[in-house]
Amino acid sequence: MERRTVKIGLVQQAVSGNNRQENWLLSAEQVAVLAEQGAELVLLQELHSTLYFCQEENAANFDFAETIPGEATVFFEALARRLNIVLVVSLFEKRAPGLHHNTAVVFDRDRGMVGKYRKMHIPDDPGYYEKFYFSPGDTGFTPIATSIGKLGVLICWDQWYPEAARLMAMAGADILLYPTAIGWDDQDDSEEKQRQHSSWEIIQRSHAVANGLPVMVANRTGFEVSPMSGAAGIRFWGQSFIAGAQGEILARAGIDSEENLLVTLDLGRSEQVRRNWPFFRDRRIDAYREISRCWLD
Amino acid sequence: MERRTVKIGLVQQAVSGNNRQENWLLSAEQVAVLAEQGAELVLLQELHSTLYFCQEENAANFDFAETIPGEATVFFEALARRLNIVLVVSLFEKRAPGLHHNTAVVFDRDRGMVGKYRKMHIPDDPGYYEKFYFSPGDTGFTPIATSIGKLGVLICWDQWYPEAARLMAMAGADILLYPTAIGWDDQDDSEEKQRQHSSWEIIQRSHAVANGLPVMVANRTGFEVSPMSGAAGIRFWGQSFIAGAQGEILARAGIDSEENLLVTLDLGRSEQVRRNWPFFRDRRIDAYREISRCWLD
Repeated sequence: MERRTVKIGLVQQAVSGNNRQENWLLSAEQVAVLAEQGAELVLLQELHSTLYFCQEENAANFDFAETIPGEATVFFEALARRLNIVLVVSLFEKRAPGLHHNTAVVFDRDRGMVGKYRKMHIPDDPGYYEKFYFSPGDTGFTPIATSIGKLGVLICWDQWYPEAARLMAMAGADILLYPTAIGWDDQDDSEEKQRQHSSWEIIQRSHAVANGLPVMVANRTGFEVSPMSGAAGIRFWGQSFIAGAQGEILARAGIDSEENLLVTLDLGRSEQVRRNWPFFRDRRIDAYREISRCWLD
Repeated sequence: MERRTVKIGLVQQAVSGNNRQENWLLSAEQVAVLAEQGAELVLLQELHSTLYFCQEENAANFDFAETIPGEATVFFEALARRLNIVLVVSLFEKRAPGLHHNTAVVFDRDRGMVGKYRKMHIPDDPGYYEKFYFSPGDTGFTPIATSIGKLGVLICWDQWYPEAARLMAMAGADILLYPTAIGWDDQDDSEEKQRQHSSWEIIQRSHAVANGLPVMVANRTGFEVSPMSGAAGIRFWGQSFIAGAQGEILARAGIDSEENLLVTLDLGRSEQVRRNWPFFRDRRIDAYREISRCWLD
């Protein structure tokens, strides 16, 4: 089987303000560090341009949105070109007045923007009021072809849906990537916090297992206060990780630290893993039709 | 929310021979122990009546198959009635001459047999030649209603398929149950063994996470030699477990020990978990249709 060795990295950061240009520069510094270390692909965390503004529903926050192309894509496209890497960034996309998405954009070395993915599953929970801001994506689950392989880019809440990972894998993704912003409510006790983090890591490692491909997850770190009085704020739990095609952890960042991860992967190993445990061979495609229903009643 | 507390148990055993009646009695002893301790539901491991005969393709092994109803169902039906429990057993089912299934049967206290599930995904790997013995099930993914709740019974290889767990949950399963027979090849190194076991536990815990319901898994333990010369045999890795609706481990058996697990669960907790992290609310049922295809090319 063909060896396809790639060095992949991600950046886990805390965000301290809403100056987008400044935040882009801070991210770019770490991307450059990783590129210097040999990274051919770098993933940034979800909505890295600003604080996680979805802690409130505030129409003024639509001012943070970016058109595609726009100032942000010009900046990151130039960065990917200069460093000669594949770069996956996250944007609050303004598609039209009153129509916004939570979008990831992929730049490929000197080829510019080669694709985008609009978050398909949109959460809405106390402190994560994303349904106010983001229209559910219309890109479907289509991997983005790059010079290092096909990227199955998904975003945060998508991580809880085995269907999304499966469809990306069936469409030929070589690797799944999840830019993320998730954290704890300090009012929960430590056992609940541990269960939440553990379920989050498990579900994403399970996508590697079920589909025989590597998974990388870039999460935010740091505490961000809520603009809403009485709300708890979010303690982003970091712990970004990269897992191999059997779901095994290859690298994991700390909870509180700004940190980069860098791993050398053989993308060809997926075939070895799938030959030994050939789950795709035995899918009961005659019996899955009702997955497309809301509930079976 | 309604509390629905139940005591559930499982039996992890080594099998040392093919005397079915003797193996039934050994299992029945442990089922009685669990019932004595208050278990209202007991799960037995996969194909507990015999050694794991699928290590070879041998037509003589069809002699181990049981009709439904038949001697095995008469035995376990009486056991469930006598102990006043819900009992989930695993059978090599003879449906017709030349047509066999890997089947789980559910007995409910004095109501007798209330349902069966025929393994839908059939493996075929060195040492696990199941496609020779078992026709893929035709029951679909339908939970079995019992006096303690709806049981989403699946079997071993099914555990690798998020689709199966999802469809059981969408059809109203209160809990997923996996009778299993999986183990190591002693020729693999310890890192590979660790990755295999870990991926197996993770994928099943992920079904709890994705669907917000508890999962119980009864695996075989002990080493069984292969009847085929030069084959490694299987070191069944035990480690049966019960996980809660966030995927958290509530009880886990050892690798080498015959052991029972017993846990008190509040089935009503699933609703609390799903209220907090409402994954079912946000499924993109408009975008999952191609799950029913073999591959996207």
